[in-house]
Amino acid sequence: MNNLPMDTFVSLCKRRGFVFQSSEIYGGIGGFWDYGPLGVELKNNIKRAWWKTVVQERDDMVGIDSAIVMNPRTWVASGHVETFADPMVDCRSCKRRFRADELIASHHEPESVHGHPVDVAGLRCPECGGELTEPRMFNLMFKTYVGPVEDDASVAYLRPETAQGIFVNFENVLNTTRKKLPFGIAQIGKSFRNEITPGNFIFRDREFEQMEIEYFVMPGADEECHERWIEDRMSWWLGLGVRRDKLHIREHDKEELSHYAKRTVDIEYEFPFAGFAEVEGIANRTDFDLRRHEEFAGRTLRYFDEASGQQIIPYVIEPSMGVDRCFLTLLIDSYVEEEVRGEKRTVLRLKPELAPIKVAVLPLSRNERLVPTARRVAGLLRPRFMVQYDDAQSIGRRYRRQDEIGTPFGVTVDFDTLDDDAVTIRDRDTMEQVRVPIANLVQTLREKLDES
Amino acid sequence: MNNLPMDTFVSLCKRRGFVFQSSEIYGGIGGFWDYGPLGVELKNNIKRAWWKTVVQERDDMVGIDSAIVMNPRTWVASGHVETFADPMVDCRSCKRRFRADELIASHHEPESVHGHPVDVAGLRCPECGGELTEPRMFNLMFKTYVGPVEDDASVAYLRPETAQGIFVNFENVLNTTRKKLPFGIAQIGKSFRNEITPGNFIFRDREFEQMEIEYFVMPGADEECHERWIEDRMSWWLGLGVRRDKLHIREHDKEELSHYAKRTVDIEYEFPFAGFAEVEGIANRTDFDLRRHEEFAGRTLRYFDEASGQQIIPYVIEPSMGVDRCFLTLLIDSYVEEEVRGEKRTVLRLKPELAPIKVAVLPLSRNERLVPTARRVAGLLRPRFMVQYDDAQSIGRRYRRQDEIGTPFGVTVDFDTLDDDAVTIRDRDTMEQVRVPIANLVQTLREKLDES
Repeated sequence: MNNLPMDTFVSLCKRRGFVFQSSEIYGGIGGFWDYGPLGVELKNNIKRAWWKTVVQERDDMVGIDSAIVMNPRTWVASGHVETFADPMVDCRSCKRRFRADELIASHHEPESVHGHPVDVAGLRCPECGGELTEPRMFNLMFKTYVGPVEDDASVAYLRPETAQGIFVNFENVLNTTRKKLPFGIAQIGKSFRNEITPGNFIFRDREFEQMEIEYFVMPGADEECHERWIEDRMSWWLGLGVRRDKLHIREHDKEELSHYAKRTVDIEYEFPFAGFAEVEGIANRTDFDLRRHEEFAGRTLRYFDEASGQQIIPYVIEPSMGVDRCFLTLLIDSYVEEEVRGEKRTVLRLKPELAPIKVAVLPLSRNERLVPTARRVAGLLRPRFMVQYDDAQSIGRRYRRQDEIGTPFGVTVDFDTLDDDAVTIRDRDTMEQVRVPIANLVQTLREKLDES
Repeated sequence: MNNLPMDTFVSLCKRRGFVFQSSEIYGGIGGFWDYGPLGVELKNNIKRAWWKTVVQERDDMVGIDSAIVMNPRTWVASGHVETFADPMVDCRSCKRRFRADELIASHHEPESVHGHPVDVAGLRCPECGGELTEPRMFNLMFKTYVGPVEDDASVAYLRPETAQGIFVNFENVLNTTRKKLPFGIAQIGKSFRNEITPGNFIFRDREFEQMEIEYFVMPGADEECHERWIEDRMSWWLGLGVRRDKLHIREHDKEELSHYAKRTVDIEYEFPFAGFAEVEGIANRTDFDLRRHEEFAGRTLRYFDEASGQQIIPYVIEPSMGVDRCFLTLLIDSYVEEEVRGEKRTVLRLKPELAPIKVAVLPLSRNERLVPTARRVAGLLRPRFMVQYDDAQSIGRRYRRQDEIGTPFGVTVDFDTLDDDAVTIRDRDTMEQVRVPIANLVQTLREKLDES
């Protein structure tokens, strides 16, 4: 995978039904992507694996699912209306619009830009050479109007992060679950950012899905808790089978920290097209958000600490990641080309839990005596597993096709099956085959999937 | 449930952590709702149950997950830009805006309005008595701008239905899955409609989640296929445990049919607050959508029929439903108040597959000898099931609390457990208790959940 160019990878994702350009028949739309038949299964499996780890398996976590459109005061309180913006300049001649920081970066060494105020003095339009306006801030939130009248009072935004949906529900969750500190709230859902330059496939899209945790903790216990979450989240990535040498942890330096953050650590993955880049951020947001919402909503959002008898505003540790970027990471990381008996074999070594299809049912041929038995076997498995039935072309080609989409197990129905009522299970990674009575097939596959 | 007023039900949903008003601390926002810790689990279980039935268990179906924001030409082709609108009138004095058909309906018998052109002549503003404008069409799609410039060229819409995401991907799915007719594509995702009068809680909200199937079939085979889908979908609702006498099927009459539909049938549920109302629509959309996309995209979207050697445009049967409305139906339908030994008991008789929490682990008391064992039991179960650990208040109250949220099984750890290493499983519906060794607990609960 390391040498695969990005556009080859994009067309491979399309050909196998993982990711399509959104509304492609109309020429697409920049920064929006659709997940195909295999893509939606992988994406759902990622979400399920995360939810299982951070909600189901923990006593100190619950989930929520808040709306994408919220009362717009939320985004005033969070600071997004004021500061979630990029500096833009317009060309006075051709009227094109550009990101000021990118214009400058293309004229200077990158280091000289970072952390400095944006200054386009002396620059001309890169398209027509025309004069440029002063930079103006362009907000990255998508704006819409709720209700029948389009005016200032009806402006609303598509959320740029799921996190605020958790903060505004802090009190509701506290009241309905009676959780004690420390505890966390997890959420999976779509967010939207009107990126000026979306790019690198699903690495930075305008519509994306987030998996965010806000973990509430006593002030003072936040730093230790932050460390624990960094370890936990790193373990999660490794537990999904991502290669250790491709992952590293990077500390944000002072200038880079968001306005709300006391400390932020990124888990980065080494992408073939972009080098090391963030796949998850773990921030100490302090009490910034709850305090701002207290102020803007005009009500207290506090936790009663029985030990001290005090009403306190908890600190917050936030592990935050994008589903789409995780999807990209896993596809890239699991992609292996190897040689088997002199032939090239392409395998997606996805953890079975994540594989879009768990079991392929493959009759040796389309022989009319084999097909009914193979169909019966597929029917037996379907209530339990995602199954693909495939009887086209040679068995060798069909094995290869399943390897390429990461199917961990192939079940082959052959002429012996008609006598012994048994089938062969082929393992994707070892390519070993074992013979199993059909009567034990569900149980055997279940155990294999549980163990893996 | 039948006599429960709507607002009592809404506050009950809030109190138990099922549904909260969106961004409630800012006074909410009309037509948007958040799902709390129990709500998100029920909602996810509904989606999983649907996906299992319509994708996993069928050989003729695949899923996709397309973006909410699509190339806006999609909505010109689908007819939404032109016709997805309500007639509105403005008051010339107070500037308030009203839905013309609702104004008229409040002045006439409902029958006289249905299917007739909207005419507000002679009506006055219901707020101030002022003069009204002529009706103008108001489009129900939420509008936004993609990219740095807000102009006509950058207008985009939040999808008002997931269906079009399927139609524009018809060719991609065909090419990557090599499916033969008849086959279908399923999708779950958010849709948005800027309803003038959202209402009845999550029955009609502005942001909602749909589960839609577009099933492609040879022209001529469509009517029989439609019948089969009506049966299949009705079976699904009954299979979830919804009461048969509360469900019925209603045929759309001619005037009511959408512009694309040859025939539409609704599955309706008898809601306590609204009488019989649609919970799923099953439409024969003919070849309307694919034909329109062919025309607007300027390319063929056809299926090659090997038997006839013809390129054909398939007909489409569309079973379409809303997750939120299904959620509401299941909560209402499963709500039971009964008398047990002279005491009132409230139970959510949700099918175990749907229940937010599968197992409650309940130490008889907070006794220090019981707690470690109870925690160990909870830890054993968590990798398999959604578990709630509860040691507050009397065991009787805790049983009642679990009954109220529909938890099918309670596992009680008592002093005998310390001797026999066994626990008691209590069944929510029968209230029967059986003693099971901890060593067999996972397996026993798994079987009970599988059977139910």
